[in-house]
Amino acid sequence: MSARQQPNLDLARRMANAIRMLAVDAVEAANSGHPGAPMGMADIAEVLWNRHLRHNPANPAWCDRDRFVLSNGHGSMLLYALLHLTGYDLSMDDLRQFRRLHSKTAGHPEVGVTPGVETTTGPLGQGLANAVGMALAEKLLAQEFNRPGHDIVDHHTYVFLGDGCLMEGISHEVCSLAGTLRLSKLIALYDDNGISIDGHVQGWFTDDTPRRFSAYGWHVVTVDGHDPSLIHAALQRARSVAAQAEGKPTLICCKTVIGKGAPNKQGSHDVHGAALGAAEVQATREALGWTAAPFEIPADIAAAWNATERGCAQETQWLQRLAAYRESFPAQAAEFERRMAGELPEGFADSLPALVAALGQRSDAVATRKASQLALDAMAPKLPEIFGGSADLTSSNLTNFKGCTTAGPNAAGRFTGGNHMSYGVREFGMAAIMNGLALHGGFLPYGGTFLAFSDYSRNAVRMAALMKLQVVHVFTHDSIGLGEDGPTHQPVEHVPSLRIIPGLDVWRPADALETAVAWAHALQRRDGPTALALSRQNLPQLGDASRAAAIQRGGYVLSDMEDAQAVIIATGSEATLAMQAQTALAAEGIATRVVSMPCTHLFDRQDTAWQDAVLPPALPAVAVEAAHPDFWRKFVGRTGRVVGMATFGESAPAKDLYAHFGITAARVADEVRALVHPRPRVRAGADVETA
Amino acid sequence: MSARQQPNLDLARRMANAIRMLAVDAVEAANSGHPGAPMGMADIAEVLWNRHLRHNPANPAWCDRDRFVLSNGHGSMLLYALLHLTGYDLSMDDLRQFRRLHSKTAGHPEVGVTPGVETTTGPLGQGLANAVGMALAEKLLAQEFNRPGHDIVDHHTYVFLGDGCLMEGISHEVCSLAGTLRLSKLIALYDDNGISIDGHVQGWFTDDTPRRFSAYGWHVVTVDGHDPSLIHAALQRARSVAAQAEGKPTLICCKTVIGKGAPNKQGSHDVHGAALGAAEVQATREALGWTAAPFEIPADIAAAWNATERGCAQETQWLQRLAAYRESFPAQAAEFERRMAGELPEGFADSLPALVAALGQRSDAVATRKASQLALDAMAPKLPEIFGGSADLTSSNLTNFKGCTTAGPNAAGRFTGGNHMSYGVREFGMAAIMNGLALHGGFLPYGGTFLAFSDYSRNAVRMAALMKLQVVHVFTHDSIGLGEDGPTHQPVEHVPSLRIIPGLDVWRPADALETAVAWAHALQRRDGPTALALSRQNLPQLGDASRAAAIQRGGYVLSDMEDAQAVIIATGSEATLAMQAQTALAAEGIATRVVSMPCTHLFDRQDTAWQDAVLPPALPAVAVEAAHPDFWRKFVGRTGRVVGMATFGESAPAKDLYAHFGITAARVADEVRALVHPRPRVRAGADVETA
Repeated sequence: MSARQQPNLDLARRMANAIRMLAVDAVEAANSGHPGAPMGMADIAEVLWNRHLRHNPANPAWCDRDRFVLSNGHGSMLLYALLHLTGYDLSMDDLRQFRRLHSKTAGHPEVGVTPGVETTTGPLGQGLANAVGMALAEKLLAQEFNRPGHDIVDHHTYVFLGDGCLMEGISHEVCSLAGTLRLSKLIALYDDNGISIDGHVQGWFTDDTPRRFSAYGWHVVTVDGHDPSLIHAALQRARSVAAQAEGKPTLICCKTVIGKGAPNKQGSHDVHGAALGAAEVQATREALGWTAAPFEIPADIAAAWNATERGCAQETQWLQRLAAYRESFPAQAAEFERRMAGELPEGFADSLPALVAALGQRSDAVATRKASQLALDAMAPKLPEIFGGSADLTSSNLTNFKGCTTAGPNAAGRFTGGNHMSYGVREFGMAAIMNGLALHGGFLPYGGTFLAFSDYSRNAVRMAALMKLQVVHVFTHDSIGLGEDGPTHQPVEHVPSLRIIPGLDVWRPADALETAVAWAHALQRRDGPTALALSRQNLPQLGDASRAAAIQRGGYVLSDMEDAQAVIIATGSEATLAMQAQTALAAEGIATRVVSMPCTHLFDRQDTAWQDAVLPPALPAVAVEAAHPDFWRKFVGRTGRVVGMATFGESAPAKDLYAHFGITAARVADEVRALVHPRPRVRAGADVETA
Repeated sequence: MSARQQPNLDLARRMANAIRMLAVDAVEAANSGHPGAPMGMADIAEVLWNRHLRHNPANPAWCDRDRFVLSNGHGSMLLYALLHLTGYDLSMDDLRQFRRLHSKTAGHPEVGVTPGVETTTGPLGQGLANAVGMALAEKLLAQEFNRPGHDIVDHHTYVFLGDGCLMEGISHEVCSLAGTLRLSKLIALYDDNGISIDGHVQGWFTDDTPRRFSAYGWHVVTVDGHDPSLIHAALQRARSVAAQAEGKPTLICCKTVIGKGAPNKQGSHDVHGAALGAAEVQATREALGWTAAPFEIPADIAAAWNATERGCAQETQWLQRLAAYRESFPAQAAEFERRMAGELPEGFADSLPALVAALGQRSDAVATRKASQLALDAMAPKLPEIFGGSADLTSSNLTNFKGCTTAGPNAAGRFTGGNHMSYGVREFGMAAIMNGLALHGGFLPYGGTFLAFSDYSRNAVRMAALMKLQVVHVFTHDSIGLGEDGPTHQPVEHVPSLRIIPGLDVWRPADALETAVAWAHALQRRDGPTALALSRQNLPQLGDASRAAAIQRGGYVLSDMEDAQAVIIATGSEATLAMQAQTALAAEGIATRVVSMPCTHLFDRQDTAWQDAVLPPALPAVAVEAAHPDFWRKFVGRTGRVVGMATFGESAPAKDLYAHFGITAARVADEVRALVHPRPRVRAGADVETA
């Protein structure tokens, strides 16, 4: 136990009130924001941040710091007040700019925008899930790198959350898993104020939350969230439970009053998400006995809050421990530092072209999900930071690889480290935990599910893109080609709808080589997520490994003919149809070019010269993809043709479905003929119906 | 208690084995499917269907039938076997066609395809959520229509579910709510076999599920799922709990062996999702002592299963009760029958044009979310079937309307009926419960959340479209126009990604009149869901109510000029920008046409004459929408221009954001000038970047 001495109780109260008034005044100045949660959780925050949290405001990147996540992200002013008061690079002027353009104090906390913010929160429940990911990262790293007497990885993950987080389904997914994994250094503090936006929660939320979490295998305690000594005792107990061999994660249910301190509005949903108004602000000042002007903190309180000295000492002490570790375990120390810096192993990038070329050598037909596994077989063992998994579809997604080891509880229930995990049927939780792993550092996470169920995880995929996190989504069974499982499992709109999440790179490779290039790209893309859409069914190889450089352009000429009259653009399993159509058309004297477009995002980033060389503007174009057709208007225009799926699929063997929906080489050839020998114009929107 | 006599135990066992062998043989014939769940749950199914379920195989539409949902939909052969055996219009030949194109036995159960299937399942957890919606519908209808001595609405909702359903977050959302609402006639039977696809669940799923559900306020019991007498007793007890004034929903945890009966594969994940193979099929036959050929059922077993006579008698008895009710309460009886037939009230459709016109009269600026509330104020009171709600954002989504009443527990915890409900922070659960309400019949559900969080509910929106259900999604705060809450709350890709869900009509109205037309359309669209994307910010009125008929075409000429040189297409809040750009361009002698396109789906369904009259093919076009631009290539082609959002938003006041991202009238005018006085071509993909 390294909890600090209990401060003077009156000082503690005034320190908490400093948070309250900064939140009140900043929300008032912005005339927008959420004062209720910061005011209600101020006492909890004071105890945690002053007496337990190990962090160094001068170095938010200290890798053994405790992580703090505000899952109820709308209470952002709570976090900004804490960061300012403890000494982060967040000035009082920054707080005055709350919710203004280009400020460091966005409406919801954003990682990368504000020093000390560990993750972007706001979409409820996901901060909690990120925290589970962070605690998992800590546990995995500790297991991998710590040595007897050398606990260089040893920190806690604290998360604040509200009723909203607990109502969201993702809270179930990740807390259930955290219990199974015994992530004992995860300590959650629940702002149990009985209020959500629609009012008193008993009309829609009557869970016995302690009982629910004990069912997950958590340690649970309930305290008065305005009593610092009880909060402190609960945190001490939580840390003591965490230290046990058979520890459990802890939930501290803190009974609080929302908007505590606003005499006329506290305890009601009026204080949740709007400025208090001048009169209530004044009344709050009086009720709290707070005489300082807005955005001013009395010197004694400012001094009591400042954590820079303590934080520096903590980090210094840790650096000494790291030095001792380096002394005894130099290779491990270097590897640890590389991992935490997020650098790929030396030589890895250079080794990729040969690996890719080798993977492109095969001549037999193979599903791209299998090609993905072969790529993992070749690449993953060279990347100790790889942490794969699947939402209970390992043998379908083929996310496991040769020599991978299972992370999770062993037969005795004891956690064992590894580099592949069964997340259970928890797509959303998996994706948000992956984000937490990436945010923590030390890991390059990937995870698999069926492409159709990317719907379940969609907002976490979006959050990865918003946070520019390197995570890889392995979405298999990418079309009606999955066959008999039918329309609930057949993606139609998913590839195009993923393509328009800003910052997400989507690949739909056509053969083993394209799949290998996609993986090589994803593993080297440090500043954003990648989604791979992979086939269930076998696909023939489309050429040799000399294509690798062209594939890296996102779209390239797969097969050309002299004086081509039209371009056929295809992705994934439909590239084969394009090739067949080319052959059929050639027999009747129509020359075409086939363009494979595995990653439209990369193609969009090429210069105009490459784009025009691949897709000559003067040539009419037909696109074929077993997905919703509208996306392809971007490349074929209003007058081009698209062979796609504008309806849901059906339940039948794959080949019957392709024939039924007219996604065939014959249909592609027909569309080319129609462009080359124009018939009366048919409008976009009418010409794309396939069934 | 109306449970039927206990059959001869040996007969019961053989009846269960009939299910097992039909599942085994059908999966074998298809060489695809899931034998594990049907074999494991056969005994449970035998007890429920033979001794408790009230249904009439000759009339699957009998409105007071018990509802049965197979939430673990991959076990579809269990349901098909039950439907065939009890006498539904599902022949042995249909079972032989399992998973073939155009068969009545799809890979996963599909409502509308197979008589007796109540909902389409497969995406895990959602069947359970649909069942919660069905049980809620029953409770609401009973409260509304039953009279002392006249319980014309009085049925149970039974749902089978597996480990996967319980791991999914949505199970938490809806079971928590079902507990709060005391949906006591909901009886769930959990196939607790300890196996999911990745293997034995203790590596990823160690919940104390009974404890979890008791925390939700459920009645929970655990039984041996292969002991008919214990299963029967548990169902009797559940129905007795349901009948209590303070009843609770019931979860029966049934300990089972997956694939029970397959001697070498039972109890392992090998039996979950693949055909057993000829040898194991033969071994199973022997182990079960089953001598009949594939797809043959011994006569005594067939006779014991057949439920047509009993079902007819049950429905006849109910019809007599309904007749007595009609005698005493003729108006209520007529209204009940109208509601269950899914017909709008007489005269409602005829009243809409006047209501729409009245709503279009206003001249002040109003947010379209407010216009939506005004439309509800005018239309909802005329529709007793309306059941609205919000995922804890009622005052933001403005889903409540004048005179609406709250459904849910009152202060004493007793459920009271109403036509608006606070669903809590459960977007996905809400959407899937709405599907259940619509499937049950008697209700036209709508529900609200922020558009950005349509991500959370996305797969349930998709399922509504797949099932062709009339539900309405009120998605407010539809762009960067929401302002300070920042990029986590600002939709960018959501409107275009919803537009490509097949069968979903998406509206983004530009003013009060367009909003009223959108609602009128949604309320009359019986065969599919509608999504409304609505602004947070006020928008000016764009013209008078004479536009109503044109708005119903999805896209129309909002403002024309003689000899227009270009078309500006706009939706929602950006229509005003288009009008301003038109004015600015006119001042410099450039004539343009402004097209408002509130519903691209409706526009796509118009004939070519209308489409060409609105968007003359020869005219260049600029589209403006504060959303991802790629979608608009469908209408502006490769060479047109799109003013949109290819990046995430920022946290700032709305007007600052529009300026920052260049979504302005000036920018629109610039793009028109560029088309009218062409500059060097810039490729699609390059010209759409706005920040």
